[in-house]
Amino acid sequence: MQTELSRKLGVEHAVFGFTPFPAVAAAISRAGGFGVLGAVRYTAPDDLKRDLDWIEAHVGGRPYGLDVVMPAKKVAGVSEAEVEAMIPEGHRQFVRDTLATYGVPELAEGEASGWRITGWMEQVARTQLDVAFDYPIRLLANALGSPPADVVARAHDRNVLVAALAGSARHARKHQEAGIDIVVAQGYEAGGHTGEIASMVLTPEVVEAVDPLPVLAAGGIGSGQQVAAALTLGAQGVWLGSIWLTTTEADLHSPALTRKLLAAGSGDTIRSRALTGKPARQLRTEWTEAWDDPAGPGTLPMPLQGLLVAEAVSRIQKYEVESLLGTPVGQIVGRMTSERSVQAVFDDLTRGFEQAVDRINRIAGRSGPS
Amino acid sequence: MQTELSRKLGVEHAVFGFTPFPAVAAAISRAGGFGVLGAVRYTAPDDLKRDLDWIEAHVGGRPYGLDVVMPAKKVAGVSEAEVEAMIPEGHRQFVRDTLATYGVPELAEGEASGWRITGWMEQVARTQLDVAFDYPIRLLANALGSPPADVVARAHDRNVLVAALAGSARHARKHQEAGIDIVVAQGYEAGGHTGEIASMVLTPEVVEAVDPLPVLAAGGIGSGQQVAAALTLGAQGVWLGSIWLTTTEADLHSPALTRKLLAAGSGDTIRSRALTGKPARQLRTEWTEAWDDPAGPGTLPMPLQGLLVAEAVSRIQKYEVESLLGTPVGQIVGRMTSERSVQAVFDDLTRGFEQAVDRINRIAGRSGPS
Repeated sequence: MQTELSRKLGVEHAVFGFTPFPAVAAAISRAGGFGVLGAVRYTAPDDLKRDLDWIEAHVGGRPYGLDVVMPAKKVAGVSEAEVEAMIPEGHRQFVRDTLATYGVPELAEGEASGWRITGWMEQVARTQLDVAFDYPIRLLANALGSPPADVVARAHDRNVLVAALAGSARHARKHQEAGIDIVVAQGYEAGGHTGEIASMVLTPEVVEAVDPLPVLAAGGIGSGQQVAAALTLGAQGVWLGSIWLTTTEADLHSPALTRKLLAAGSGDTIRSRALTGKPARQLRTEWTEAWDDPAGPGTLPMPLQGLLVAEAVSRIQKYEVESLLGTPVGQIVGRMTSERSVQAVFDDLTRGFEQAVDRINRIAGRSGPS
Repeated sequence: MQTELSRKLGVEHAVFGFTPFPAVAAAISRAGGFGVLGAVRYTAPDDLKRDLDWIEAHVGGRPYGLDVVMPAKKVAGVSEAEVEAMIPEGHRQFVRDTLATYGVPELAEGEASGWRITGWMEQVARTQLDVAFDYPIRLLANALGSPPADVVARAHDRNVLVAALAGSARHARKHQEAGIDIVVAQGYEAGGHTGEIASMVLTPEVVEAVDPLPVLAAGGIGSGQQVAAALTLGAQGVWLGSIWLTTTEADLHSPALTRKLLAAGSGDTIRSRALTGKPARQLRTEWTEAWDDPAGPGTLPMPLQGLLVAEAVSRIQKYEVESLLGTPVGQIVGRMTSERSVQAVFDDLTRGFEQAVDRINRIAGRSGPS
């Protein structure tokens, strides 16, 4: 599974793995892929530093990267408190009522909400970058829009490639104009923030739109067959996020959530604004249904929605309130039916990839040397 | 492009083309694919007979098939007039008001609505079958649910394979239990009635669910690369519908609609209940937006919605009211940028397929004999 991009980065397989867990990121790189640590949950620079130190100690010298969230639209000079003040009381009441209906206990006095919106704010992302650029990261990915020009320049000065997610060809061309090195084409079926164009259509469209920039295909990929299909569509690699959530190295801090992920089918996700205010694919739960219900108050725009629900999400997760408990995940969740090690996932991907290439060669009437 | 199924049917390419136009169906089969004529618009048996005669005269002895619409849920013994009576007056008024807002002229006195809901009713489909079984069709496809057991038996008696569309693995297994021979896995990105699972996820899921039944991948396929990707995912063939709409053999009776299709991007479709009452992907127009608007009356269930809008759709089409003018089409519409012959589409598909296989072999490090 070698492309121009994987050779450039010095990895064995053109498989990029996005994960919030340092142990998963390191295991992906050790298995011959390219691990990318999601930084959004690190509000304290020292926590990020601690986890990057851990990765350095466990990645065996293999390359890895960091994913930050810098919204394209920033509200300059607005404090978290000022943003908080924009949330209507009716929406706060809806959160309280919904949690009460399901008997969700409160956090202990002084206990911090684990999931914080602050990671979504540019100043926090910049602090993360100040930390990360002291480490030999090879890739910096941004989940929302192109990073600011000075961040791209800073990355390039350090020989760090910059990647950005796009849900349309138009969006991808904007990244190209902003000097991005790699576009991640995020299909409708992907977990997290996603547009409406499915990978089968989006991948070649983005490849053609930004040629000769390399494109990673994201969305709907969890088997070697799907890796082969995505690369057939012109991608120079695949970007997998969901599949790692049920690996043994992942630490969801919630056996109930792991059980829900293992039990969910491909039809059990929904593209909802419930989590952040922008459409993001996640497990369909009674929580997402409450927000998507026309009878409710509806969701608020980003970043208000994330701020509004942050504590509620923490409470639901801490107390594992099953009917409300969810997480961003793609339609590939239907394929996540057992806990496996990251290495076992890679073994499955590479074996499935070879079988898929065998198959397409038979269909093409080519008796290749395999 | 040879699979077990394409060999069984005696076609050169495992490409199945669905089309309402006899000239397109015949051209697909002549080009080495398998043409499937959509029968839903034939309310008069003689019209279907005339067009099947035409295909027989122009298909050069190649195999072809027929696609009918037999809803899984039937309302036994209910007449069209009785169904008509179920439509609320408020909805009829909304149709009149919307047409008036856009100044859509009325049909001439006694002029029949071209698009008729009656094709969606089982008795009409059965009449179509009575006609079709007198012709050497090799495939009978059904767009909604499994055909009734007696129809499957009748087809099998005549050595006609039966195919049915499915949007989920559960749906596909139901077809298998009903004795269907081929499942068409219709992804989210497809034109017409479609579910929410995208092809990248749906295709392998359905293949595994109904193994060893052959599966055709539908949705998002309009290039040879996409054909290769779909076959890589385990399909035994691809089922293409949208791509033929802008071929020179197609007769949309509307230059304005052809222009709209050629200009539309992959993001210009919507999955809406506006046309039939079930979610169907189509061009996004001010007509679909009126039906999807929460301020409007909303759509009615199938078959009421189709009956409600039939005349309106005819008027919009006849007078080519551009802002309202639409058609079922998939996200692949973004790739339909010029009018080409069916043969030119096939040349493009086969060339693109070979290039895609070359590419995946290079990535796999195989220097195959190409």
